[in-house]
Amino acid sequence: MPNISNKGMKMPESPIRKLVPYAEDAKKRGTKVYHLNIGQPDIKTPEVALNAVRNAEIEVLEYSRSEGSEEYRTKLANYYKNRGIEVDANEIIITTGGSEALLFTLGTVADYGDEIIIPEPFYANYNGFATASGLNVVPVISSIENNFALPPIEEFEKLISDKTKAILICNPGNPTGYLYSKEEIKKLAQIAIKHNLFIIADEVYREFAYDGAEHYSILQEEGLEDYAIMIDSVSKRYSMCGARIGCLVSRNKKVMQTAMKFAQARLSPPTFAQIASEAALDTPQSYFDEVIEEYVERRDLLISELQKIEGVKVAKPKGAFYCIAELPVENADDFAQWLLEKFDLNGETIMVAPAAGFYSSDNVGLNQVRIAYVLKKENLVKAAQILNEALKAYNA
Amino acid sequence: MPNISNKGMKMPESPIRKLVPYAEDAKKRGTKVYHLNIGQPDIKTPEVALNAVRNAEIEVLEYSRSEGSEEYRTKLANYYKNRGIEVDANEIIITTGGSEALLFTLGTVADYGDEIIIPEPFYANYNGFATASGLNVVPVISSIENNFALPPIEEFEKLISDKTKAILICNPGNPTGYLYSKEEIKKLAQIAIKHNLFIIADEVYREFAYDGAEHYSILQEEGLEDYAIMIDSVSKRYSMCGARIGCLVSRNKKVMQTAMKFAQARLSPPTFAQIASEAALDTPQSYFDEVIEEYVERRDLLISELQKIEGVKVAKPKGAFYCIAELPVENADDFAQWLLEKFDLNGETIMVAPAAGFYSSDNVGLNQVRIAYVLKKENLVKAAQILNEALKAYNA
Ligand SMILES: Cc1ncc(COP(=O)(O)O)c(C=O)c1O
Ligand SMILES: Cc1ncc(COP(=O)(O)O)c(C=O)c1O
Repeated sequence: MPNISNKGMKMPESPIRKLVPYAEDAKKRGTKVYHLNIGQPDIKTPEVALNAVRNAEIEVLEYSRSEGSEEYRTKLANYYKNRGIEVDANEIIITTGGSEALLFTLGTVADYGDEIIIPEPFYANYNGFATASGLNVVPVISSIENNFALPPIEEFEKLISDKTKAILICNPGNPTGYLYSKEEIKKLAQIAIKHNLFIIADEVYREFAYDGAEHYSILQEEGLEDYAIMIDSVSKRYSMCGARIGCLVSRNKKVMQTAMKFAQARLSPPTFAQIASEAALDTPQSYFDEVIEEYVERRDLLISELQKIEGVKVAKPKGAFYCIAELPVENADDFAQWLLEKFDLNGETIMVAPAAGFYSSDNVGLNQVRIAYVLKKENLVKAAQILNEALKAYNA
Repeated sequence: MPNISNKGMKMPESPIRKLVPYAEDAKKRGTKVYHLNIGQPDIKTPEVALNAVRNAEIEVLEYSRSEGSEEYRTKLANYYKNRGIEVDANEIIITTGGSEALLFTLGTVADYGDEIIIPEPFYANYNGFATASGLNVVPVISSIENNFALPPIEEFEKLISDKTKAILICNPGNPTGYLYSKEEIKKLAQIAIKHNLFIIADEVYREFAYDGAEHYSILQEEGLEDYAIMIDSVSKRYSMCGARIGCLVSRNKKVMQTAMKFAQARLSPPTFAQIASEAALDTPQSYFDEVIEEYVERRDLLISELQKIEGVKVAKPKGAFYCIAELPVENADDFAQWLLEKFDLNGETIMVAPAAGFYSSDNVGLNQVRIAYVLKKENLVKAAQILNEALKAYNA
């Protein structure tokens, strides 16, 4: 039998998905499982987006342009302008999810063996995209004690080598919920310019900034025209994860020309989903106000419930819809599996994402889990109760 | 300014798209351009597929499973069974177009610096996917004199090195229209087994086999369980290129497990398009009968019109909807651009794809173009007339 590639062997398994078989077994036994493990919101997709697809008059479902339809990019540029981000339609390439934008970006900025610095914990699939691109992730540790703030500049500088090509941040952060301040972005800008590195900012949770905090985009920072690449997505913003539409935005013409070659090779992003995404831009502000209010209530409730549990430490997220909780267990991986395999409270249990998969350093985050507050409030309360009882039973 | 990656610099520009600005200029001058340059059929998408999307009851447009929805894979396996290809739903991963299936496959079978042997001329984007994956394409030449038949086994064996990981074929072929016989597939199987190589068969044009010839799939050949990976797509079969749904099919469990890790990293294929693709499986046979009849008529007409033109040599394709024509010019690249920039016949001209981009060997195919017969018959007749007059004018 021919050998699988080394790259294929090294590709990480999604930490979020590896517990899925245990969850399926639990469900087969009749146990109800609350899914706190994935970023799949239960929020309704805006009707205006769904209707646009229902009513689209299509005879031949054609390829779109590789960079995405002209109309959509034009409207999207306008959307950014309204949020204080000045970009032109031709500084945008529409991709198949933020995922593909990340892949094109890594291919554009780095070669086999090159390094990308990423504050950890980070979105686990960054590991997958880096491995698929032959790159090495160099983590810089942000810690729960500091609420996952940007690590000090010196920590970055220690890690920069000739192989470093970019710094990748997620703002607001998955899995931390951390929202970078303007000052932190300015610090990053300094490092990028001084060391001639790209800054890639994954801003797919931009709209999810709470407590009156304002999101400061990497594209709002002046002087970064040549350095900044922004990743975006409709998945979370409009609760339309299944559309598979995202984009890559940069003012660096060479970056755009290069990313376009990757885009051309795969022909085009999905047509139905572009129709939905273009229409979604007309979603009324009231939709977002309601959604944000709902998330803030969920967060406040979840955090206060978690803080009541003995031995649980949790940082209060300022954005996105995740939090990292430190648990009074040694191995959260084992605990998460045990929750599905061995535990239930009145026929119910919870599924959480062990946080080790969000770190690329070994032996870090072993006692942490990521909890996504993508469920209704009453279910979050139940989930916290289940966690509380489960910890007692597990540690007994 | 930070440097673009070497990989990015090496990414080929799509040979099909680089003439687009000239075509746009021609249109601005009021010249009508017949598009023979791309594989975007004018055939209608089956109503059953479009209606399924119109009538889908969706509240939250969720991620699907990374491997594609269970229902779709199950129905698809059945579709293959009806065509003599015995596969199980779990031997299929649904991808975002055949394009993504190619990318996952290359990542699964080969590492940076490895080699893939491909009979040339080949689908130009194979170059892009190989470059994006850090691989080198090793071409084995098939020639217009032989109607682009499979090159002799010795030609393959000459090219096999320790770095060779796979042979990639396209059957029926884009750009050649060549349909491999059962005997040719058996020859390939021998090479793969003897040299322990994967065989990747891109069968996205499977249904387009003419003159009563039967398509013989790589998955129909016994003994290739560990070696064969098949690439497929709904793009051409149902004229739904914009859906962006394809798949990767293999009986090799390690291949499937590895490809799944690439699939998980990008989360899921598009949801609307899976709904359309699943419904498309109910397209009545009469649709295909009509479509095939239409393509056969187009092919016969185009080939006979081309053969009337002095100095033009063309192989009669047995499948797909492309042909390679050798023209009485030295540089087809220049001629194709000239057609758009300088020529018109009563306000009309044609756009063809210079064939050099379908070869990875240098200085081969320079006097060839690829013509896609994706237009109505009356337009193909006009296009041939335009070509005839243009050649006279160009050579004068
Ligand atoms: C931080 C982050 N970036 C990117 C993505 C990719 O999302 P998509 O490909 O659906 O746009 C996700 C999805 O969860 C995410 O959390
Ligand atoms: C030979 C071949 N393979 C693969 C593809 C990719 O098609 P898609 O990604 O639309 O499935 C094409 C498209 O033209 C093709 O001609």
